[in-house]
Amino acid sequence: MKRTLIYELQNKLEEEVCLKGWVHRIRRLSKISFVILRDRTGIIQCVVDNKSYDLSLIKLESVVEIKGKAVKSNSKISIAEIQVSSISVISEVCNDLPIEINKENLDINLETLLDHRVLSLRNRHINNIFKVQAVIAQAFREFLINNDFTEIFTPKIVSEGAEGGTAMFEVKYFEKKAYLAQSPQFYKQMLVGSGYERVFEISQVYRAEEHNSRRHLNEYVSMDLEMGFIEDERDIMKLENEILKYIVSKVQEKAIGQYPEFLDKLPKVPNSIPDITFSTAIRILRDVYRKEDISEEDLDPEGEKLLYEYSREKFKSEFLFVTDYPRKKRPMYTMPKGSEFTHSFDLLFRGMEITTGGQRIHNYDMLKENMEYKGLKPEKFQHYMEVFKFGMPPHGGLAIGLERLTCQLLELNNIREASLFSRDRTRLTP
Amino acid sequence: MKRTLIYELQNKLEEEVCLKGWVHRIRRLSKISFVILRDRTGIIQCVVDNKSYDLSLIKLESVVEIKGKAVKSNSKISIAEIQVSSISVISEVCNDLPIEINKENLDINLETLLDHRVLSLRNRHINNIFKVQAVIAQAFREFLINNDFTEIFTPKIVSEGAEGGTAMFEVKYFEKKAYLAQSPQFYKQMLVGSGYERVFEISQVYRAEEHNSRRHLNEYVSMDLEMGFIEDERDIMKLENEILKYIVSKVQEKAIGQYPEFLDKLPKVPNSIPDITFSTAIRILRDVYRKEDISEEDLDPEGEKLLYEYSREKFKSEFLFVTDYPRKKRPMYTMPKGSEFTHSFDLLFRGMEITTGGQRIHNYDMLKENMEYKGLKPEKFQHYMEVFKFGMPPHGGLAIGLERLTCQLLELNNIREASLFSRDRTRLTP
Repeated sequence: MKRTLIYELQNKLEEEVCLKGWVHRIRRLSKISFVILRDRTGIIQCVVDNKSYDLSLIKLESVVEIKGKAVKSNSKISIAEIQVSSISVISEVCNDLPIEINKENLDINLETLLDHRVLSLRNRHINNIFKVQAVIAQAFREFLINNDFTEIFTPKIVSEGAEGGTAMFEVKYFEKKAYLAQSPQFYKQMLVGSGYERVFEISQVYRAEEHNSRRHLNEYVSMDLEMGFIEDERDIMKLENEILKYIVSKVQEKAIGQYPEFLDKLPKVPNSIPDITFSTAIRILRDVYRKEDISEEDLDPEGEKLLYEYSREKFKSEFLFVTDYPRKKRPMYTMPKGSEFTHSFDLLFRGMEITTGGQRIHNYDMLKENMEYKGLKPEKFQHYMEVFKFGMPPHGGLAIGLERLTCQLLELNNIREASLFSRDRTRLTP
Repeated sequence: MKRTLIYELQNKLEEEVCLKGWVHRIRRLSKISFVILRDRTGIIQCVVDNKSYDLSLIKLESVVEIKGKAVKSNSKISIAEIQVSSISVISEVCNDLPIEINKENLDINLETLLDHRVLSLRNRHINNIFKVQAVIAQAFREFLINNDFTEIFTPKIVSEGAEGGTAMFEVKYFEKKAYLAQSPQFYKQMLVGSGYERVFEISQVYRAEEHNSRRHLNEYVSMDLEMGFIEDERDIMKLENEILKYIVSKVQEKAIGQYPEFLDKLPKVPNSIPDITFSTAIRILRDVYRKEDISEEDLDPEGEKLLYEYSREKFKSEFLFVTDYPRKKRPMYTMPKGSEFTHSFDLLFRGMEITTGGQRIHNYDMLKENMEYKGLKPEKFQHYMEVFKFGMPPHGGLAIGLERLTCQLLELNNIREASLFSRDRTRLTP
């Protein structure tokens, strides 16, 4: 007998069906018992006659097969229920559950949830975070493929760093020393120059940063793109605006059927996301919010939060571009704007930076000079430099952190909640 | 003036247009010259009056902007050509090209092509390999998403190996020792058990294998899937059959417009790919082909080639499943079949293994026993083992090597041709 999924039951009323899934809850009354069964599509109430089956042998979270008749139900759980004719255990539970997972909301601390990741993921709300994440990633790809971008796969074992060479994980590559890529930056630029013009990649990248904060992971998924023949960074900002509209619309589309609890959280992406320069941002923080300890080079988390407040009040937008970052702060490949600033931007979403992007230098001599300005040795980057000798179009790009976007979109508290298996300063398992 | 792409010109005849791209070739006659311009969509002939422009200053592969009128053309190159009114250099070429790339087929050895990857990728045939690869990856995802699979992103920095712990690259993870993942095997199984039931991932994996062959890379892209509630490995084989049909149809769909030179190479995927057991395969090699030096545990490259011959003759199929591999040869998570064999399969395509897959053990005690049979210590795999204590459904899965599939689909000679930036025993750059 073919397996029926729980969400298919509405079309199978009055039919004999075979369900498979996990035992989510058991409720015993004097004559009958209720087994709540869970599969990947939902939960359903199954009614068991206590005379026919001894449910005391069936443990929560066992994998079972239940056969019976699907009938209409008045329960809150689902519009159908099963009058069970047989129930059998496919796969047993051999230990007591270390955490209780069948409640709507788990009151368990994050470290414990992450330690028992496979079990905590069985909770519907936690499970759904990653259904949304999968939709985000595929929407990003779809949008770019529709706009003539080519997907690329570039190596994560590299011989040189793209972001200045600090905070890299070291790999023993046979007799050589290598590193884990901090970003596909060099490769995506090189591939624009190799004729693809428009490329994207979604893949893991690595930052060996010592701090352990609620917004950092040491391994995360970067959604990268790079585009040739642009005017300047404005083209990239416009593109990101469109991508975000598309992503949110795709997440929304599936929300009612799959993760209705997140529907309220989804933002409205403006048709034109507002932007302010970095200098203006600093001025606002200083003059409007009287913030002290302001760095002239970057925004800190508190600054980002205040700018979120500002953006909501002034622009009615949860998204805010900050542009024209100081040259000192941005990597050597960033196109300068005058002597002090750059053709660059960050995107803040609900008070957290989710994107860094900008126009890149495409002229060989300018790149060489800028490397020297940054204290880097051009001869250490010869494979990257080569492409600039042979006709590199004006170009730019960006990277969106997948976990950060997921975290902010669903208003989670900690980025680890948006990573299936987190890697941080101390966590290397599961 | 908005940029027109070369493939859009057929709808712009008799209009003034602005093109941007690379100078592919220049041909000088006495009164006029031809500049062949290349962008990501094709090449076009541009006619320049020698009196108006001195083309001697423009080098091959410079990035230029060309304005002019699009008119019908009788040239072999394209159905339109441009009567140039202005030409200006956007980005210069500062060195002599180290390799000649504007010929149809490059007669350059592979190492040189890989050393100058960005330039060699500008050759149309080489460039197109990765347009096909991008289609393969996205088709794999689309098919699985349509079949209710959830995309996952799992860590590549791991504390334990999935395939027995040999041939792993070591990573310095702060004060700890970690490794690069050989496969997402443990994680995809864990996520089946965490309630997703059906998951897939496309990402880089790492094998620190010493040999340097035409079919091995030390970093490659693995297209992985895992599925719960299966009967046995036959369900996975059927699924792969459907996936391959879908992938080939998607590659075919775009072939005429984008990479017509590959059209002839595409295989017919049978509705039911034939299969033979490993024991039968060994018998065929011994009895039919009189092959010597046969291993009783695995097929060697010569054996795979002979089986390709056999499959074409006997089944008229370029694909062949080999099933029931010996238990000795397969990893500890493979479901045994009797005492000697396993519920496992490889898929051979044109004489090369492109997939390994099978049913996995889902019972905790059986898994523990099998680990011990394999000489592994269950306590070293406690995070992986945990899921088997709490209700793991019967499941199985497979991995397809993206570069191998690309290589075999397009009949390339070396897997490095199907990797944008190869990582092998000696190559760590570009």
